[in-house]
Amino acid sequence: MKVDGRHYRSIWRDQERDRVRIIDQRWLPHEFRIAELDSLDAFATAIRDMWVRGAPLIGATAAYGIAVHMTSDARDASLEEAGKVLFETRPTAVNLRWAIDRCARILEPLPERERAGAAMRLADEIADEDIEINRRIGVHGLEIIRQIARTRPDGEPVRVLTHCNAGWIATVDWGTATSPMYQAHDAGIPVHVWVDETRPRNQGALTSWELGSHGISHSYIVDNAGGHLMQRGLVDLVVTGTDRTTADGDVCNKIGTYLKALAAHDNGVPFYVALPSPTIDWTVRDGVQEIPIEERDGSEATHVMGLSADGSLGQVQVSPKGAESANPAFDVTPGRLVSGLITERGVCEASRTGLARLFPEFDAPSRAAVRDG
Amino acid sequence: MKVDGRHYRSIWRDQERDRVRIIDQRWLPHEFRIAELDSLDAFATAIRDMWVRGAPLIGATAAYGIAVHMTSDARDASLEEAGKVLFETRPTAVNLRWAIDRCARILEPLPERERAGAAMRLADEIADEDIEINRRIGVHGLEIIRQIARTRPDGEPVRVLTHCNAGWIATVDWGTATSPMYQAHDAGIPVHVWVDETRPRNQGALTSWELGSHGISHSYIVDNAGGHLMQRGLVDLVVTGTDRTTADGDVCNKIGTYLKALAAHDNGVPFYVALPSPTIDWTVRDGVQEIPIEERDGSEATHVMGLSADGSLGQVQVSPKGAESANPAFDVTPGRLVSGLITERGVCEASRTGLARLFPEFDAPSRAAVRDG
Repeated sequence: MKVDGRHYRSIWRDQERDRVRIIDQRWLPHEFRIAELDSLDAFATAIRDMWVRGAPLIGATAAYGIAVHMTSDARDASLEEAGKVLFETRPTAVNLRWAIDRCARILEPLPERERAGAAMRLADEIADEDIEINRRIGVHGLEIIRQIARTRPDGEPVRVLTHCNAGWIATVDWGTATSPMYQAHDAGIPVHVWVDETRPRNQGALTSWELGSHGISHSYIVDNAGGHLMQRGLVDLVVTGTDRTTADGDVCNKIGTYLKALAAHDNGVPFYVALPSPTIDWTVRDGVQEIPIEERDGSEATHVMGLSADGSLGQVQVSPKGAESANPAFDVTPGRLVSGLITERGVCEASRTGLARLFPEFDAPSRAAVRDG
Repeated sequence: MKVDGRHYRSIWRDQERDRVRIIDQRWLPHEFRIAELDSLDAFATAIRDMWVRGAPLIGATAAYGIAVHMTSDARDASLEEAGKVLFETRPTAVNLRWAIDRCARILEPLPERERAGAAMRLADEIADEDIEINRRIGVHGLEIIRQIARTRPDGEPVRVLTHCNAGWIATVDWGTATSPMYQAHDAGIPVHVWVDETRPRNQGALTSWELGSHGISHSYIVDNAGGHLMQRGLVDLVVTGTDRTTADGDVCNKIGTYLKALAAHDNGVPFYVALPSPTIDWTVRDGVQEIPIEERDGSEATHVMGLSADGSLGQVQVSPKGAESANPAFDVTPGRLVSGLITERGVCEASRTGLARLFPEFDAPSRAAVRDG
């Protein structure tokens, strides 16, 4: 999407010099910096130290990392080394494993001299696929916004609330939850976005930066505010992303999503979740019972990072010294609270029936029947 | 309550030197400082610049301020001046007006030479009354905790979640929502408190400081976490305070309270609100429709105050520069989501019927009947 009027991806190839560049996200939302990655080490550092973040972007970055490494040494041992080094940067990232395996599978059978070119084309393909999935999510989500826009007084914006950063910088472009917002804005439908801060890591600041850079009207709000805004009729629609969706339509997303879903339900506000279908976990049904929730370091809750008065990045402790903290990173929103899932194939009910209609190839009626019985 | 093993009030008279002292709350939770207030100016500054905070404490502080001023000059003009100066420090604080009017009403008829002594006794009385109301709230709330404790496995704590700081340092002693927790702890019933951070002003840090100083086990959590904790069965009870309660039992409290009430309701967790009966506004019935919500400066949401690495108090900006912010300070929790109101007279249903049973002198059946008709 746009930054200061110019279109960017979060990772791209400089066509003239055939170099790979990324937005170095460590400095966002306070500073917009671009970094050039020119070696396997540089790619590994960028993934490990979170210069890039978000599952789809991590996958694309790994693919470009392999491609750059192939240009200097395309032997079998080198291909294997690239996969190993990159995989170890964030071993629990499913997309990272998937991208590395896909590259290996396609490049291994090729003669060495063809590997560099093929690897670069493959990385482009992985990036383009992500963009296309997100664009389609946006097309389907746009229809929801368009329908709400028809009910709004003339010229009044559709007011969308979102939580965390399911934005374009967590993908290669468009984002998931943000894709409908960008498409509505680009189609001339006025939107105003309530951006949840999303403690403890304040990813809302990234969403705010994205939307502001693209020129979309929005307000940064604390996580506590959304219920009140819905109660007073100031929210027309909630759209969030998801880290993992179950076969029954439960949604595991950033901590606090569940509270917003409850408020939406209590006030009759539509609550949609945008997702690329690969994040559906068809082996899990009841998210509350079956999904273990990552407990992260308590210092994320007791300390806050931001821009100090002197312009440097700094941290302040908000809790009393020595206070114990608990810090669950995700929560599960039961499908019953979700108005619909927005996928690249269309919008469906957040239920096994709804998902089976859009993804019949994954439906396992016999197994489900046994379990239901 | 206790700080490092010694009992404190938030305001007290040094009996030997007849000086008034307060806990200077500007430095909490990072530093425990005591200040002596010895002039009308000092009291006015302490209220205006929030060395003291919380409605009951502000009222008591004003009363002591008038008393100290009377010791130096007890003429009518001086009494009038004290009321005027103190009232202007925080003109929207209802308790402040109430305390000043009460002092004026009682002191005016007295001869000048009796005013200083009477004013000091009156301030003591106002402080003692607040303590007694909060103690009684705690006695009734303790029964709720005691009943839950019977259902917990042997030795396992009752897990209470609270939002904001309805604690002893917002009153003269005990606090409102915290009073049952202190009484349970002092009675040997193990409790563990989940302390909501309460963005944007992080009053949870004060609650954490209070509980820690008194020796009560607790965890500091972000506001997003509570729903998940309730969903996983880790919360036995929610207790919050309230700034204003309607005659129908709706509760206006710190922003975010409503979200916790929704989560409690969705998970069958009892949700209680502790309040001194003077905060019931008998003229208001539907809190969502009738109570205007204060919109505070957006910088509270975009910036966070805390302890810097160098040990000084500092502020960091978390949002991107120039991001717009909305900052509603309170929300309304409908009575239907409240399991009960804990008052100094006992616990009642959060409804007109429930309140009328405890406070029959305020019930206005004829007016209500007309409005219902």
